[in-house]
Amino acid sequence: MQNDITLLQETDLFKNLNIEQINKVLDICRRVRFAKYDIIMKEGDVGDSIYIILEGTVEVIKNLVSSEIMEDDYQESVKNKIITKLDEKSHAVFGEISLLDDCKRTATVRAITDCEFYEIKKDNFLHLIEEHNGLGCKILLNLAGVVSKRLRKADEDIIKLTTVVSIILRESSS
Amino acid sequence: MQNDITLLQETDLFKNLNIEQINKVLDICRRVRFAKYDIIMKEGDVGDSIYIILEGTVEVIKNLVSSEIMEDDYQESVKNKIITKLDEKSHAVFGEISLLDDCKRTATVRAITDCEFYEIKKDNFLHLIEEHNGLGCKILLNLAGVVSKRLRKADEDIIKLTTVVSIILRESSS
Repeated sequence: MQNDITLLQETDLFKNLNIEQINKVLDICRRVRFAKYDIIMKEGDVGDSIYIILEGTVEVIKNLVSSEIMEDDYQESVKNKIITKLDEKSHAVFGEISLLDDCKRTATVRAITDCEFYEIKKDNFLHLIEEHNGLGCKILLNLAGVVSKRLRKADEDIIKLTTVVSIILRESSS
Repeated sequence: MQNDITLLQETDLFKNLNIEQINKVLDICRRVRFAKYDIIMKEGDVGDSIYIILEGTVEVIKNLVSSEIMEDDYQESVKNKIITKLDEKSHAVFGEISLLDDCKRTATVRAITDCEFYEIKKDNFLHLIEEHNGLGCKILLNLAGVVSKRLRKADEDIIKLTTVVSIILRESSS
């Protein structure tokens, strides 16, 4: 139990929570298992739960090329990119964007070993926040911070990509 | 005063707040004016306040090309892009990302008419959330939703850009 408390406190989503508050989060956590190669979530699907890795390793895969435009074989080699691998040492939480807006998964997550997670359902999460506003504020501030960090990263990627396109256009016009 | 209440309730950041809660937000709002062509915030600068448009129009400008890589004249024509124009009818709040993480402005905002705004300082905002957790949860859930919507938009832009780069690479290799 002490291990679980420390584990949650070390995630970006549940940092700064005291032990009493972490225990309230643990009350809505359910242990779930996935086998090696199982798909835990699929990009574009509607999802209503978040996961915290307890044991095992997953890979996060994102579609990087519009399949409407590139329908041929070439596409397959560049379409999907493994963004990162996560294990219990990463103190990783994933699926948390689905707690907000339209719930669509922003990436595919696949188990590359047998895995065990804590799963939290969106309804239970929102109920917890409503019942315990002090705890809710801390988690939501963390959540907004997690999303904003990803937004900054995405903005940097956009600058890199438009720079590449600009260089190519300049080369081809000269 | 009723106008101000309605105005705040129509923003993405303060929607779902009741009149009592909106009044608490109004207590930390300060009216500020900017003249036509004034820069309200500059991309990359550290900022500690958010703005709600009461009157006037602004443009939001983002740097889209890395200035480290493209240092010549060509750069100027593609570097900065006006992303959008906002006025009081947009029910626009801007600068809210600086309430999170490292406070760096993610875009430049410039007045294109004389403008009047409500300004909220980060310290007052965080203090309000701490003092009134119920109100805090509502605002933070809205804030996380705003940021997550922008993240989805940025992710879509990345897919479009990588698609363009992939097409160019395919053309040049064939």
